[in-house]
Amino acid sequence: MKERYLSHPTKPIELFEGINCSELLERLESCSFQGRQLALAAKVWTNALDEDLTVWMGLAGAMVPAGMRKVIVQLMENRLVDVIVSTGANLYHDFFETVGYYHYLGSDMVDDRELREERIDRIYDTFADEDVFFAVDREIREWAMKTIEDRPYTTREFLRLLGEEAGRRSKGEKGILSTAAELDIPVYCPAIGDSSIGIALAEADRRLIFDMVGDVEETARMAAEKETMVIYVGGGTPKNFIQQTEVTNIVNNRKVSGHKYAVQFVVDPPHWGGLSGCTFEEAISWGKIATDAKMVTVLSDATIALPIVSAAVLTRRKGRKRPGKD
Amino acid sequence: MKERYLSHPTKPIELFEGINCSELLERLESCSFQGRQLALAAKVWTNALDEDLTVWMGLAGAMVPAGMRKVIVQLMENRLVDVIVSTGANLYHDFFETVGYYHYLGSDMVDDRELREERIDRIYDTFADEDVFFAVDREIREWAMKTIEDRPYTTREFLRLLGEEAGRRSKGEKGILSTAAELDIPVYCPAIGDSSIGIALAEADRRLIFDMVGDVEETARMAAEKETMVIYVGGGTPKNFIQQTEVTNIVNNRKVSGHKYAVQFVVDPPHWGGLSGCTFEEAISWGKIATDAKMVTVLSDATIALPIVSAAVLTRRKGRKRPGKD
Amino acid sequence: MKERYLSHPTKPIELFEGINCSELLERLESCSFQGRQLALAAKVWTNALDEDLTVWMGLAGAMVPAGMRKVIVQLMENRLVDVIVSTGANLYHDFFETVGYYHYLGSDMVDDRELREERIDRIYDTFADEDVFFAVDREIREWAMKTIEDRPYTTREFLRLLGEEAGRRSKGEKGILSTAAELDIPVYCPAIGDSSIGIALAEADRRLIFDMVGDVEETARMAAEKETMVIYVGGGTPKNFIQQTEVTNIVNNRKVSGHKYAVQFVVDPPHWGGLSGCTFEEAISWGKIATDAKMVTVLSDATIALPIVSAAVLTRRKGRKRPGKD
Amino acid sequence: MKERYLSHPTKPIELFEGINCSELLERLESCSFQGRQLALAAKVWTNALDEDLTVWMGLAGAMVPAGMRKVIVQLMENRLVDVIVSTGANLYHDFFETVGYYHYLGSDMVDDRELREERIDRIYDTFADEDVFFAVDREIREWAMKTIEDRPYTTREFLRLLGEEAGRRSKGEKGILSTAAELDIPVYCPAIGDSSIGIALAEADRRLIFDMVGDVEETARMAAEKETMVIYVGGGTPKNFIQQTEVTNIVNNRKVSGHKYAVQFVVDPPHWGGLSGCTFEEAISWGKIATDAKMVTVLSDATIALPIVSAAVLTRRKGRKRPGKD
Repeated sequence: MKERYLSHPTKPIELFEGINCSELLERLESCSFQGRQLALAAKVWTNALDEDLTVWMGLAGAMVPAGMRKVIVQLMENRLVDVIVSTGANLYHDFFETVGYYHYLGSDMVDDRELREERIDRIYDTFADEDVFFAVDREIREWAMKTIEDRPYTTREFLRLLGEEAGRRSKGEKGILSTAAELDIPVYCPAIGDSSIGIALAEADRRLIFDMVGDVEETARMAAEKETMVIYVGGGTPKNFIQQTEVTNIVNNRKVSGHKYAVQFVVDPPHWGGLSGCTFEEAISWGKIATDAKMVTVLSDATIALPIVSAAVLTRRKGRKRPGKD
Repeated sequence: MKERYLSHPTKPIELFEGINCSELLERLESCSFQGRQLALAAKVWTNALDEDLTVWMGLAGAMVPAGMRKVIVQLMENRLVDVIVSTGANLYHDFFETVGYYHYLGSDMVDDRELREERIDRIYDTFADEDVFFAVDREIREWAMKTIEDRPYTTREFLRLLGEEAGRRSKGEKGILSTAAELDIPVYCPAIGDSSIGIALAEADRRLIFDMVGDVEETARMAAEKETMVIYVGGGTPKNFIQQTEVTNIVNNRKVSGHKYAVQFVVDPPHWGGLSGCTFEEAISWGKIATDAKMVTVLSDATIALPIVSAAVLTRRKGRKRPGKD
Repeated sequence: MKERYLSHPTKPIELFEGINCSELLERLESCSFQGRQLALAAKVWTNALDEDLTVWMGLAGAMVPAGMRKVIVQLMENRLVDVIVSTGANLYHDFFETVGYYHYLGSDMVDDRELREERIDRIYDTFADEDVFFAVDREIREWAMKTIEDRPYTTREFLRLLGEEAGRRSKGEKGILSTAAELDIPVYCPAIGDSSIGIALAEADRRLIFDMVGDVEETARMAAEKETMVIYVGGGTPKNFIQQTEVTNIVNNRKVSGHKYAVQFVVDPPHWGGLSGCTFEEAISWGKIATDAKMVTVLSDATIALPIVSAAVLTRRKGRKRPGKD
Repeated sequence: MKERYLSHPTKPIELFEGINCSELLERLESCSFQGRQLALAAKVWTNALDEDLTVWMGLAGAMVPAGMRKVIVQLMENRLVDVIVSTGANLYHDFFETVGYYHYLGSDMVDDRELREERIDRIYDTFADEDVFFAVDREIREWAMKTIEDRPYTTREFLRLLGEEAGRRSKGEKGILSTAAELDIPVYCPAIGDSSIGIALAEADRRLIFDMVGDVEETARMAAEKETMVIYVGGGTPKNFIQQTEVTNIVNNRKVSGHKYAVQFVVDPPHWGGLSGCTFEEAISWGKIATDAKMVTVLSDATIALPIVSAAVLTRRKGRKRPGKD
């Protein structure tokens, strides 16, 4: 009996000069705690790509101001993700950077009252020029006024057009929205009003109407069509929105069995009871995750976990075609 | 010089038999760490009520399934909060409980595959009957089809009607939405599609359209009209949505100076860089919080912090009128 | 089958003016998340006192500078705890306050370089005068030189004498060590060198020798004599030291079955793999906790959890005798 | 003025196939949040090695059962660390693995009552055979009885001998203690009784006496001799013990100016007020850290942060001599 539990010894990790991210994670598979989870995340993601399924990525937290924009672009370009659901902030900042503006290295040990006077906005240890934000707000408003027609748009439709605009204005800089537009990758934003995009559109000459329920329907239908892998970078609305596609399908009597592969890089532990930190086990009870899903939770800041795991998956998959893609 | 720093000795808390929540928090003011913060939250909230301002409460996390519904109702009834911004989930579960359904005491140490078979949905340590959820989804869909007209609704308009319906169907049970409808307290839900309300409305005979930008405009205007206190129960979209009212006003050249009082009960620390855990200091750089605001952050599960602080504020304010209210 | 899981509806908490801590926790028992855990901690502690067992309390974190000294004194005076295992820091600060010195209300938003110049030491949001610390270091050193004999002392023996000294020097202020000495409550400190007590004794004229293994043996024997409840305020060495009493007994073929009741107020989640945050479930695998133990983990800052739970237990138990005590 | 804050744009990280850990961290230096901190940790550590100073490493948490033993051995072999202060558990498990026993890959989703029956001890997601633990306890006891003389030993002296024994018994497996003995690297354990080493020595035929104050003195003197870098893997007693060397020196009027370089990989945030999570800024107020120290805090599980940062430092420093070493 004892052997059942004691069958695989851990193998303490050994480093070598120039060890790459993929090699490091391979070795961490035989270690413990979140190091092992990080390694398993890369493994599950890599292996899932051998199957013909759709990879959904949820993006919460200030990932773009934190410098994760190009990693996500690379994931899209290499067909490692197929659908994106994001907070509005990430997409606003993505547009902002793609069209040529910058975030700046800052510090959290600073006098915010002085920043206020200088009109510098702080995102933890990162700064931005408020005046540029406001100029971009106005640009988005003006662009929307002349581009968006007088009918409800799903956020996917709206963001596709915004991505095309970003691409047009970009001087070589690649962004999430512009790349998504180029590669026909759908991007959703379930709380688009709750962001600088919402702010930009407020008090415009004409009211823009988003078809939120349309987003719900469309994503649910897409999730019913093909098996799914989900990758959550943070929790928030993106995680919940992708999770609920399966519930919507169950309510509407569509035959689904829950997401088949699931990886999350989160910082919330489950014991606060919120959706952001909830386990994939809990999600099984709802039918959101398949009962036999391969699932990995990594408790880590995504600015650590995402680049390393992406580097490993990119290294392992480079040049290989995905079934049903390309 | 030294005296400048060493002027107020801590006073170790001493208990007594039957000590009430207000008395306990009073004593904790002279202690340290999060205990002190909890005490200061009650103090700042209580004192702010002497001024003629609007108290905005953001509600994230599964607060209603966790048993916080009536506390929030009591806060509304006693005019301790004036506006509510919530996740869709809390409002769905509020409707669900108000019309007579139950959540159940459960456990997080359970076989979720077995729960799946039984169609029981788990929220950390709390259970609910999925079949009842689905029945309520259908009820909301049918109610909406016959009640909601064919025009965009702000979430406030929609939730007012849903609150009235909850009140009609309630057999004595008070809810957030029904009480808000009765007392004319506005309720907003910036990611309404991202919840069981969104699920309920998907695949209906007729598409319901929400006027998300209308919510943004309306809340910003309201925040410009009268000074504000903000209370965040968790982070998420509700916190961001209330915070951004001030930014919207700045962009649109309305004279605002940031929220004047600010209390938050959060579990996210600032070092992950996300909005949910960000400090009020950071918010000052954006103009969201006044440079001279009284502000308190309590790092604690809201199911601990909210009832205790609410009990203290209720005890201290009971029977007293608020300037400009009642 | 479904009924097995859905038997006890949650009961949303309702407050009233002047609600006391015991009443609040009673109501939180029917809610969820950490609020429920807090309530169960008070319940399990209260009920355990009906049995003839020894209550061990582990004290980690800067609980005394944080103002928790008198709560712990009250717990000892009311026979709600019987044995204490603490970090050295808490005991040093306890001595310091008992003999008449102060900690001061401070802030974590301060220039630490300025504090350094002023010789003010910061403990998060609490200040103390370094010169007074150094004076007390010298006092302890001198006291030890003339009091402690030239033989190994268990920390219990040493701390008993230090407690008596604190009592002698106190002008009415009660402390953990002085009260323990008075009431014959044993106090252990497994890392006594790792604190200002250790600093005070370094470079003395004579080397003081602690009998660390004696502490291990003595506590293990005590834990074998009578059934045990454990209460951990924070993790660290105190938690591990109390937990290992059962392992020591198993190794030495003493018949023990693990601690029978277990409550912990911790801030570390289990997923980092450390002992501080580990679950009581994990401890069952080691035999540290009884397989049928009543056990409650509360994820909360102890400066919130300890006073509230203590207030409830004090209120519920006041005046009642414990079996085998008094 | 604005330019003062907005001088260095972030540079979103871009990956490439086979990117190694050092290259990844280089790119993360221009990103934000904990990813940037991780990168800066590697940078500060690498650069500090150009100076003639002593690198102290504190080791808390179950790092050895988690598979970090060889990383630490490699750090010692490559002269990237010079002194080690550890919990007893890590050193016990190091001895255990070095002499040929194993930890096993396990899971935290397991029935601990079943493990109890099988006498399998769980460390989060890692298992070990309790019977082997007990055999090793007996071996250590017997070894100590015949090796350790009847006088107080500092933990350094004791652990040196235990390391030699581990080396003798090892069949090619390298451990922390055996490597330290071989390379003459001092290892301290301020809470040695609070671990399986303490358990092993309890109830022996002869009482072993540790000279804890000797450890305090010796480490303080060593820290006064040469400038210091400190690296904390977790908090706990090792962090506090290394931090207090400077305080001991100040109390004893030795001229020290605080640790000059400081890196910590911790999971505790500062707001709980404990030493484990406290900032290096706070440590400046005590004189533990130099006012002009280069210091980096990384909030991350050490099983993620330690291997990656070590890989980068190893890669960057390989083959280079350290001033004053070798």
